Amino acid sequence: MRTIHVIGIGAGDPDQLTLQAVKALRRTDVFFILDKGEAKSDLVRLRRDILDAHVPQGTYRLVEARDPERDRSAGGAAYSPAVGDWRSARADIYERLIAEELGEDESGAFLVWGDPALYDSTLGVLEEILERGTVAFAYDVVPGISSVSALVARHRTGLNRVARPVQITTGRRLAEGFPEGVDDVVVMLDAHQAFQRYADEDIDIYWGAYIGTPDEILDSGPLAEAGPRIERLRAEARERKGWIMDTYLLRRNPRGGEG
Amino acid sequence: MRTIHVIGIGAGDPDQLTLQAVKALRRTDVFFILDKGEAKSDLVRLRRDILDAHVPQGTYRLVEARDPERDRSAGGAAYSPAVGDWRSARADIYERLIAEELGEDESGAFLVWGDPALYDSTLGVLEEILERGTVAFAYDVVPGISSVSALVARHRTGLNRVARPVQITTGRRLAEGFPEGVDDVVVMLDAHQAFQRYADEDIDIYWGAYIGTPDEILDSGPLAEAGPRIERLRAEARERKGWIMDTYLLRRNPRGGEG
Ligand SMILES: C[S@@+](CC[C@H](N)C(=O)[O-])C[C@H]1O[C@@H](n2cnc3c(N)ncnc32)[C@H](O)[C@@H]1O
Ligand SMILES: C[S@@+](CC[C@H](N)C(=O)[O-])C[C@H]1O[C@@H](n2cnc3c(N)ncnc32)[C@H](O)[C@@H]1O
Repeated sequence: MRTIHVIGIGAGDPDQLTLQAVKALRRTDVFFILDKGEAKSDLVRLRRDILDAHVPQGTYRLVEARDPERDRSAGGAAYSPAVGDWRSARADIYERLIAEELGEDESGAFLVWGDPALYDSTLGVLEEILERGTVAFAYDVVPGISSVSALVARHRTGLNRVARPVQITTGRRLAEGFPEGVDDVVVMLDAHQAFQRYADEDIDIYWGAYIGTPDEILDSGPLAEAGPRIERLRAEARERKGWIMDTYLLRRNPRGGEG
Repeated sequence: MRTIHVIGIGAGDPDQLTLQAVKALRRTDVFFILDKGEAKSDLVRLRRDILDAHVPQGTYRLVEARDPERDRSAGGAAYSPAVGDWRSARADIYERLIAEELGEDESGAFLVWGDPALYDSTLGVLEEILERGTVAFAYDVVPGISSVSALVARHRTGLNRVARPVQITTGRRLAEGFPEGVDDVVVMLDAHQAFQRYADEDIDIYWGAYIGTPDEILDSGPLAEAGPRIERLRAEARERKGWIMDTYLLRRNPRGGEG
């Protein structure tokens, strides 16, 4: 039976690979690497560097494919259906890769950025392929250090406060309103600095871009002061590199009387 | 200047240590290991095994201390103050360890279960010591694979659904009500199986105990069916080992009309 390893590789620092991930890499015959196009080729390079560092050359094959374009023009309510179409397009590609590039008793691997459990489609895509029933395979998941864990480690703070909850959400959702019932919110996939909306509230921000990589930028402080600084840093960095990946924690301070 | 490494060691599987953690272990002169008493001595043993596996003997010192007892009798609203007292008691111990056991230019380390960012007091305790100003040190944090990441990897599912948020909370909070605005909720520190309250809702549970260890138990399914099974498994395991650590994800299915 074909086997697939879904391996979390950490979010930028090659040392944030786990020993379990290294072992899984060494058990893999074929690595599938999906290219998202020019701009983010650093991310593809990190995957190659990880293989070079941990797996003896000549012991594996590398198969590259082009990721389908996601329809980013579809805004608002159309977001989920566009994601669904894109997932099916990706399932077509993965299905072909698994069926054509992997021998009956071989193992393949997808190297997933950060932790495969957070805002990543790989597991959903594999389930979709299995449901189609055209190609059979077993699969397992190796957890990775997410950009969320890496962010708070760099800021030397926790995700939650004592006995309190934390929510992980998207920029799109934060733009619609501050989540109910939580004062600690991690925001990912935010192309529009949704934190700006909360500048006049008593909130601290812990922000990081390209965390764990040589380009890492960190900033933190009360949103009213740190927010404008982060906007500038973010715009400059994005201009310089052509793309940006950033994540932040918003921590709302207890209201007078409550605290 | 004294240096402290706060090192996340994963939540049970020694292979879920990162390469960064291994490097930090090897740069450490003194390991501080806090014993929580008889029952959970497996957890202390895992820390020793990790040292034996990755750090040459004779290159470090091991200092053991007894963790202060937390006042678990203080229920409800008294929870936070009791935690505060306990944190200060812990700060007294850590302060003494750092001042007395660590030379001026040496580095010490605390090996933290899972990820130091999730429901762990070490960072708060170190900040409290620094605020007291009696002993100076620099410190850094090495993120770890949390029991949350380990749980969902074993169940081969994501934490969030596409473009949706996820909340991480405690059993105590879940007992008060299902969190607002989210349908995916991870529950930690639940001594009373708070999920029982939601047995008649359309919710799937993904549960794991002793995840990553030889005692690992996993179960999942619709809450109405899996819930009673998990209660039995949990009671048996707790009886057998004398203690239990478990975590679960609740995933509420979309209501008719919404989905
Ligand atoms: C598609 S999600 C994938 C998240 C990934 N699975 C993880 O665990 O970090 C991409 C988002 O992750 C965050 N991200 C990933 N890597 C990052 C890094 N090195 N620095 C800052 N943010 C990062 C950003 O919010 C980005 O928009
Ligand atoms: C004090 S918190 C520490 C969490 C830890 N920092 C982490 O990242 O997993 C202890 C809680 O973590 C969860 N936990 C830790 N290790 C676990 C394991 N191996 N299996 C299941 N749950 C675990 C349980 O919910 C337990 O009540």
